[in-house]
Amino acid sequence: MNDNGQLTTPAGQLHLNELHSSLSDPALESMNFLNEVAGRHPGALSLAAGRPYEEFFDIEAIHRYLRRYEHHLTAEQGLDPEQARRAFFQYGRTKGIIHGLVARNLQADEGITADAESIVVTVGCQEAMFLVLRALRTDEKDAVLAVAPTYVGLTGAAKLVDMPVRTVRGGPGGVDLDDLAEVLRQARADGLRPRACYLLADHSNPSGLSLDLRTRHALLELAEREDLLLLEDNPYGLFTAGEERLPTLKALDTRRRVVYLGSYAKTGLPGARVGFVVADQTVTAPSGATGLLADELAKLKSMLTVNTSAISQAVIAGKLLEHEGSLLRANEREIARYRDNLAQVLAGLGQAFPASTGVRWNTPSGGFFLVVTVPFPVDGALLEASARDYGVLWTPMRHFHDAPEAEFQLRLSVSLLTTEQLDEGIRRLARLINDRLGGQRPDDDRPA
Amino acid sequence: MNDNGQLTTPAGQLHLNELHSSLSDPALESMNFLNEVAGRHPGALSLAAGRPYEEFFDIEAIHRYLRRYEHHLTAEQGLDPEQARRAFFQYGRTKGIIHGLVARNLQADEGITADAESIVVTVGCQEAMFLVLRALRTDEKDAVLAVAPTYVGLTGAAKLVDMPVRTVRGGPGGVDLDDLAEVLRQARADGLRPRACYLLADHSNPSGLSLDLRTRHALLELAEREDLLLLEDNPYGLFTAGEERLPTLKALDTRRRVVYLGSYAKTGLPGARVGFVVADQTVTAPSGATGLLADELAKLKSMLTVNTSAISQAVIAGKLLEHEGSLLRANEREIARYRDNLAQVLAGLGQAFPASTGVRWNTPSGGFFLVVTVPFPVDGALLEASARDYGVLWTPMRHFHDAPEAEFQLRLSVSLLTTEQLDEGIRRLARLINDRLGGQRPDDDRPA
Repeated sequence: MNDNGQLTTPAGQLHLNELHSSLSDPALESMNFLNEVAGRHPGALSLAAGRPYEEFFDIEAIHRYLRRYEHHLTAEQGLDPEQARRAFFQYGRTKGIIHGLVARNLQADEGITADAESIVVTVGCQEAMFLVLRALRTDEKDAVLAVAPTYVGLTGAAKLVDMPVRTVRGGPGGVDLDDLAEVLRQARADGLRPRACYLLADHSNPSGLSLDLRTRHALLELAEREDLLLLEDNPYGLFTAGEERLPTLKALDTRRRVVYLGSYAKTGLPGARVGFVVADQTVTAPSGATGLLADELAKLKSMLTVNTSAISQAVIAGKLLEHEGSLLRANEREIARYRDNLAQVLAGLGQAFPASTGVRWNTPSGGFFLVVTVPFPVDGALLEASARDYGVLWTPMRHFHDAPEAEFQLRLSVSLLTTEQLDEGIRRLARLINDRLGGQRPDDDRPA
Repeated sequence: MNDNGQLTTPAGQLHLNELHSSLSDPALESMNFLNEVAGRHPGALSLAAGRPYEEFFDIEAIHRYLRRYEHHLTAEQGLDPEQARRAFFQYGRTKGIIHGLVARNLQADEGITADAESIVVTVGCQEAMFLVLRALRTDEKDAVLAVAPTYVGLTGAAKLVDMPVRTVRGGPGGVDLDDLAEVLRQARADGLRPRACYLLADHSNPSGLSLDLRTRHALLELAEREDLLLLEDNPYGLFTAGEERLPTLKALDTRRRVVYLGSYAKTGLPGARVGFVVADQTVTAPSGATGLLADELAKLKSMLTVNTSAISQAVIAGKLLEHEGSLLRANEREIARYRDNLAQVLAGLGQAFPASTGVRWNTPSGGFFLVVTVPFPVDGALLEASARDYGVLWTPMRHFHDAPEAEFQLRLSVSLLTTEQLDEGIRRLARLINDRLGGQRPDDDRPA
């Protein structure tokens, strides 16, 4: 732009540097690159996409869910037909219309007791993340911490509100609490206000790691001591490979330290784009009046998307109602599928890569993802070659993380493919890795 | 907050001034107040809500629309059943999946020839507004102009990105072009970069006014001369009371000066929350690569809502397909209804208020809204009394506008009520106004 405040190009022809900085951000470029690679090689098997398994998709279920919710409104809630029609068709409550069912679901599946009024139903979990960060970011001093490697949706939402993200080491335990304390201290020393720390406690994306119970309690203690909000994102909590499910941070949260970010993309269906946030923190106005953080988030939502599609909410509600509010029950087939897929991939890797190859991987207790470490650099060029010459897609970990070890890591997703496709996908990946290993001795390039 | 960058209250107990400034904004407070008044008086007839008419709502239509779109995908687009299921269930294209149908609709109803790739399907028009403002706001110097009185959704979206709004006089012609040039000049003199000017050219909310053809051409000339984007919002364009429909600014736009904001809330159904933006402007990256503004908006959307609900898009697509892409055809009953309602309200006002009362109103050529000017101040207290003692709701114009004349104006919406309810609503409003007139002589308090 020139000094007179006029753009240097006519308005119909913009320059990227005349648009918001997030649009020039390397993180976004990198996300685009991944999509482009996938787009250029539609025949490649995807161990990249964190998409739910497709075999059980059934369009008739959408109709059934809608009718189930209609029945709920009329027969169970006592609405007359006109009111029910209005619920489906008209503008609706900003905070959502299925908040009671979401609260029931949290009680049934997570042991979380949430006041339905503290819930805002959102356009997927992504909108929930944006709303929370928008509320917390008042000026350039507000920062958010995030456990690394970090889900790109959080990084992206932070960029939309120009909020710096300071990363906290995850480590093998899912979160390094000493590092968290140190990052907090450093951020404050730098004049920042760390407003919250974002993490997934269960089957994290992208690391696959979960926090053990002791760490959960210690993290809540640290949040209390350091006066920090925790933003707990939990899209994968139901998908435990073993028998044991640990309580979420929110279930353990007795002091309203946790803002809980919920997604129905993996447990309901992605096409509905329904998520939610539990924000039971109190907000005091200068007048002394108090309300819930949820109500402040709803005010922001009224300027962003007005309300979440009633039809989408009705679909999710119908699925919840069909299973007495339990998505654990609704997802029995899917949970078994993801468990089997994860076991299959772990076994396949074990067969393909004896210890002598220097190829290693972690062993998540569930979820969609695991991380493979190889003794050579993993970058976009390797991914391109993998897609083109080997027909298999995965995600470079440097996409989520700028730590040195990420340069040698790739994320595998086990959620989307069938048994046969997974076998073939692992075979193709093994071929790629073995070809690369052939060109060099194990351990050559690995970081110390 | 204290000087150490720590909040003065524990994280579970926030203060409003520790949250984003939009949440303390008077505009938002005022919007909340209006909702609260309506909530406290559920029995009051609403001449306030800009909601579509409800008599034709039919839940079976949702099922029909979904099946029609499914048929379109399989029988017309050639997708196999697995691909069709994926379209409904899975994560989808960020820019939307019904862009081709939206382009067809724009051609059919508006004479707008839009490349489908220049369209982003959004979560209602509100998300489209946010995306455009987010893209254009790079730092504190970027400002947006808006024709006054201004739709609160634009004001709200601007507050979410901390972007100042400079208002341009609407005047009786819908936009005062001399004032627009002057506001531009002044904004630049103040060191701002005016990036765009927002307006409704047809049946504006809240003024009810439309631009005549000459003004449309002159506005486009001015935009070219002053190097300004126009953000044209068009939710009510189909609802013309007379026979003549004028071309939209976008239909007249030969130089990509217009970003077109579309809504299917009134013409499709609000419960789907589907809108769109046509952004065919080119964007040049520092590398020299060029793309469409639509693609930049999609990048932002990927960090905000990921994609618009496929199920919601399918519902709107089905309605479009049922009427060969024309919402003009789909809305024949609604168009007649709004035309009759507007005529009924205008006749009712004419009967209730002879010229001697000093009560005046404008005569829109269509749409949902008209503005009544009364010879006494119109404020929240009057609205509260109106709802409580007279059983009728409307909107104080000061909600949209801080000009002196707005203090004496109220907006009426004619869209929601049936014939009988409208009659009763006008009777109640007349009683309120006459009671107030009884306490004072006409012209007493009016601005000169």
